[in-house]
Amino acid sequence: MIVTILGVTGYAGTQLLKLLLQHPEVEEVLAVSSSQNGKFVLDEFPALEPELITKKMQKSDKHIISMEKAVELKSDIVFSALPHLKSAEVLQPFYQKSIVLDLSADFRMNDEAKFNKAYGSAPLFPEQQKRAVYGLCEWFTEDLYKTNLIAVPGCYPTATLLPLLPLVKNQLIEGDIIINALSGITGAGKKAQNHLLFCERQENMTAYLPGMSHRHAYEIEEKLEEKGFVNSISFTPHLIPLRRGIFVTTATKLKSGKKQEDIKKAMESAYDKKKCIRILQQIPQAKDVWGTNRCDMSFHLDGAHLILFSVIDNLMKGAAGQAVQCMNIRLGLPETTGLPLNSPF
Amino acid sequence: MIVTILGVTGYAGTQLLKLLLQHPEVEEVLAVSSSQNGKFVLDEFPALEPELITKKMQKSDKHIISMEKAVELKSDIVFSALPHLKSAEVLQPFYQKSIVLDLSADFRMNDEAKFNKAYGSAPLFPEQQKRAVYGLCEWFTEDLYKTNLIAVPGCYPTATLLPLLPLVKNQLIEGDIIINALSGITGAGKKAQNHLLFCERQENMTAYLPGMSHRHAYEIEEKLEEKGFVNSISFTPHLIPLRRGIFVTTATKLKSGKKQEDIKKAMESAYDKKKCIRILQQIPQAKDVWGTNRCDMSFHLDGAHLILFSVIDNLMKGAAGQAVQCMNIRLGLPETTGLPLNSPF
Amino acid sequence: MIVTILGVTGYAGTQLLKLLLQHPEVEEVLAVSSSQNGKFVLDEFPALEPELITKKMQKSDKHIISMEKAVELKSDIVFSALPHLKSAEVLQPFYQKSIVLDLSADFRMNDEAKFNKAYGSAPLFPEQQKRAVYGLCEWFTEDLYKTNLIAVPGCYPTATLLPLLPLVKNQLIEGDIIINALSGITGAGKKAQNHLLFCERQENMTAYLPGMSHRHAYEIEEKLEEKGFVNSISFTPHLIPLRRGIFVTTATKLKSGKKQEDIKKAMESAYDKKKCIRILQQIPQAKDVWGTNRCDMSFHLDGAHLILFSVIDNLMKGAAGQAVQCMNIRLGLPETTGLPLNSPF
Amino acid sequence: MIVTILGVTGYAGTQLLKLLLQHPEVEEVLAVSSSQNGKFVLDEFPALEPELITKKMQKSDKHIISMEKAVELKSDIVFSALPHLKSAEVLQPFYQKSIVLDLSADFRMNDEAKFNKAYGSAPLFPEQQKRAVYGLCEWFTEDLYKTNLIAVPGCYPTATLLPLLPLVKNQLIEGDIIINALSGITGAGKKAQNHLLFCERQENMTAYLPGMSHRHAYEIEEKLEEKGFVNSISFTPHLIPLRRGIFVTTATKLKSGKKQEDIKKAMESAYDKKKCIRILQQIPQAKDVWGTNRCDMSFHLDGAHLILFSVIDNLMKGAAGQAVQCMNIRLGLPETTGLPLNSPF
Repeated sequence: MIVTILGVTGYAGTQLLKLLLQHPEVEEVLAVSSSQNGKFVLDEFPALEPELITKKMQKSDKHIISMEKAVELKSDIVFSALPHLKSAEVLQPFYQKSIVLDLSADFRMNDEAKFNKAYGSAPLFPEQQKRAVYGLCEWFTEDLYKTNLIAVPGCYPTATLLPLLPLVKNQLIEGDIIINALSGITGAGKKAQNHLLFCERQENMTAYLPGMSHRHAYEIEEKLEEKGFVNSISFTPHLIPLRRGIFVTTATKLKSGKKQEDIKKAMESAYDKKKCIRILQQIPQAKDVWGTNRCDMSFHLDGAHLILFSVIDNLMKGAAGQAVQCMNIRLGLPETTGLPLNSPF
Repeated sequence: MIVTILGVTGYAGTQLLKLLLQHPEVEEVLAVSSSQNGKFVLDEFPALEPELITKKMQKSDKHIISMEKAVELKSDIVFSALPHLKSAEVLQPFYQKSIVLDLSADFRMNDEAKFNKAYGSAPLFPEQQKRAVYGLCEWFTEDLYKTNLIAVPGCYPTATLLPLLPLVKNQLIEGDIIINALSGITGAGKKAQNHLLFCERQENMTAYLPGMSHRHAYEIEEKLEEKGFVNSISFTPHLIPLRRGIFVTTATKLKSGKKQEDIKKAMESAYDKKKCIRILQQIPQAKDVWGTNRCDMSFHLDGAHLILFSVIDNLMKGAAGQAVQCMNIRLGLPETTGLPLNSPF
Repeated sequence: MIVTILGVTGYAGTQLLKLLLQHPEVEEVLAVSSSQNGKFVLDEFPALEPELITKKMQKSDKHIISMEKAVELKSDIVFSALPHLKSAEVLQPFYQKSIVLDLSADFRMNDEAKFNKAYGSAPLFPEQQKRAVYGLCEWFTEDLYKTNLIAVPGCYPTATLLPLLPLVKNQLIEGDIIINALSGITGAGKKAQNHLLFCERQENMTAYLPGMSHRHAYEIEEKLEEKGFVNSISFTPHLIPLRRGIFVTTATKLKSGKKQEDIKKAMESAYDKKKCIRILQQIPQAKDVWGTNRCDMSFHLDGAHLILFSVIDNLMKGAAGQAVQCMNIRLGLPETTGLPLNSPF
Repeated sequence: MIVTILGVTGYAGTQLLKLLLQHPEVEEVLAVSSSQNGKFVLDEFPALEPELITKKMQKSDKHIISMEKAVELKSDIVFSALPHLKSAEVLQPFYQKSIVLDLSADFRMNDEAKFNKAYGSAPLFPEQQKRAVYGLCEWFTEDLYKTNLIAVPGCYPTATLLPLLPLVKNQLIEGDIIINALSGITGAGKKAQNHLLFCERQENMTAYLPGMSHRHAYEIEEKLEEKGFVNSISFTPHLIPLRRGIFVTTATKLKSGKKQEDIKKAMESAYDKKKCIRILQQIPQAKDVWGTNRCDMSFHLDGAHLILFSVIDNLMKGAAGQAVQCMNIRLGLPETTGLPLNSPF
């Protein structure tokens, strides 16, 4: 099986490269980058195991290659870690011939108006959108079996939706939903910008794009509404001085007449036998999912106030890991093939 | 003027020592610790300026001293950075003779039932409580002029109440208040505990004591209710891998019929000419108040959802700095005497 | 194959548990701790994969167990991550029946006088010492095949010796050796001590136990002398605010008449086909070996001054990883079985 | 007194701004930046105290200004935090009219050949060089009184030279000097470069430009040679994941016949009554000088091996703080006027 990664030099792209080189079913990896085209893979990524590169990057002779070269070499699977409003465009040569997993937002949303609000533009390929499946694996497993276009969810939506969807689906909550999300700095991408420098983030924290200003807010809203949610959400992300991790604290209210036991049952029934989800008695910690494809979650009831906690590694279950999980499902492999669930941290 | 610090080896006590040694009106500082009694101050605190110690710690011959010795030496002002349910007891010899500033929770709450819920015990000295003034400086300035017992507020309540009080007082919000607070690790105190080790907190984050489980939730609730708040709060603190800083994100709803302009006016009118408060157009950042006695705040309106942001240095405006500000007010000094407002970070 | 880990709750012991649960040849793991005896493994280590525990910890019914229980259950392999001067003693019941890998210093040194200088005591079992093999895998491979007692090297000695030994062996350097080692905080162990708190180490760095004050200095000296080194070393370790990693900068002098090419040849010839060693053109970085069992190294010649750089993950190649590598060699398995060489960082 | 800061947006320039706004003898500060010209000072530096800006930045109406405007407004003192090979050029309009303190390397070195090796260019203004005084305050006090051109030393040279100069001057050491320096990331400047991103430096460390590849090596060498040093140095800097701080470990040999007491005496005699230098019994820690203008140092003798430890805050005694100390000396003020010696950390 030949897989291609577009945009391999960003944090999500690099994580994909690490995972796919180690994946037992992947025979060949093509690493594509317009800026690093022609460079030796090991020079760009000295953290990789040389032997894996030698073994699985033969077609490119261990080099980072261009889009043109990748198209020419053909792939069974293509992952794109390119920016939104660019990814869907660049992916065009692959739609007919490969299974495409797009980690950008370009195919995540079915509601064109919401997409427009979030991204300031109409979706690029509304026709393609119809066949796209939203790759939140635990909720769209059936659809993932048969699609060739998978929209891998955003990191914030993944961490936020996983504890909420069972409650919304079972109509256990009422009123608005207040979402506070804390993100490690890899979530902001690998950009040479002043505010992402070590010296600007160490011993610092802040919120950004509150309310409905962040693009992911609309993605969260749409997926909740598709399950019957009728009220409003308020989503506030924060930048926290760690490399990896998203910790989400969601406050809402238990529906009158419902009980703690109902929440427990809804969660357990949604995630029974789901290996990437763990429902804990205690509040989860970022370090326990670091480097894994797992989402740990717990909930706390205080009178009618219901507080949900969920934590993921933003580069794993929040991006590259979930993308590989989608691929595994699509190919009929066990869904955690090649995915760490044991934190190396 | 002679000042005494009880519990000088904790983070708040040490910060008090730094501030008071530099305070232009303080002539002599007595540093008290039961565990480090007899040790040279400079050996315990090598970050201090030797010359200041030589100049202002003559009575103790530059040593950390015992309670007994401190009582014997007499003080104009006594600060206690001892734990709750111990502080009020240990302070007994000073109530009649000195101005007492208690950084513990022992005199913060007027409602005995709430205190009991928060601390699992009745207040130790209900009689003393009557003369205690809550040292949230910008709101109790008048009372501070004339009391000899000041209860310095908790770090979370300070950061939470400052943006909320003007809105509650002016009846600009309705419904419940959802408070998410992020705290640096000094907020957990200087305790040799496994979960506070560098290797347990680096690249980690979590919430703890959610809903109304944290003691400070009741302190916040009481002070809001005293200004007319009638609904419920939900308070969730988080541990963030930085040394200093509290960042609070508070979500509530604008009262029907009220406008953005009303909030702005209420905030500006509450804090006009208050040098330790700054209302910003953009979301505040922890690094900008690091080492200062300032609270920076901003608000964001998204439909009816109102989000408040506030940030303080938990050891300064959240503890030692505010204690010194209280002392300054009590003594009729300019309130920022000896207090940095310019971040050294 | 049944393996036992003594002292599983420290950082090295926990890392062993992670590695051995994932090791393809290990069928059953016994986790021993006197302090946490009786606790569920997943409660103590929530970062582990539940399924692995279920599968490979059946004999202990997924619990941490006592020494007595471990002795009773028997093991093919026993790892000890206990402290020096205690480990050799506690290991007694296993010497005759199991292959023993001791991560403490108790069997690392052949020279009793040096051991005494380093540990302030004579070796506990001088007779056992004779059959112990020093587990610096790349240098003692042949001996590792046939021993049942392996002394896994210290973290500093591993990182220091790997670049030095080829040069000493080939008589390429002259004069003294100045070693500066930087260590992440896990190197200091998981002890609830004030100086290891997050707030004491963040934005801090220092040296400790310089010259020949650190125990590892004698271990380094002995192994160099065994290869013919006749001058003196000076070893200074430093504490650096990161979790994992040892970076060693070693300064010495190129022997008169020798050339850059000689060093390159000696290094390449020593480590040709050694999968855990990589000789780089550029200076290595800690993040590139994070979580791997690899030592990356490079050298720099400036006139006669020769500077060697080497970096390892102190919990992997510096402790648990190298212990597993030793086990693999002893058992005739490929030496990197179950050992990551691809950094997850 | 009017002071101007050229290059105010870098880390050293910003630190100068903080210090000078608080300096009791400075009446007016002009902040110059070509990239941020025209911006409100408080918008660029929200960590500053608004009142200080209002009070001391009247001539620029609280704005960042251009070079042209600064020349027009005239200054008593001009600090330049511009890059080397640019600073001396830009400073031209001020040489005749103001006291100039250049934080760049342009006037630090008297030996043109060495300058050439270090900076790949001849000095820009060899004539000016003759009147320049090297601002290592404790060693050039007398010369500082009477010069109008001060070359503020580099951060590494300051930390390295302070413990070494008394030993070289008194001929107490022999052989080569091996210098290992650890630097916080502000030392690399405020540049939007990938390798300075939070996510590239967190949990990472490395060396760079070893041997004599770093420019500061030549500055160190020259100043040692001027005091009689005849052997060679080897200087290796390292990047450490903290914001501020330089920790230097220097290894050399005690001259035959000399004793520990001689070193102690030489150091004490050099720094007797120097308020910015502290000689400690124990190894210094970065956190104890954080935010101060102090250099803490200690030494350790192990046989003939002599190890020196020194630590500074690279933005204070390593840059802006030392520049202000130079200014104080030049103006006949107490040398620590406006300079913190009490760490706020």
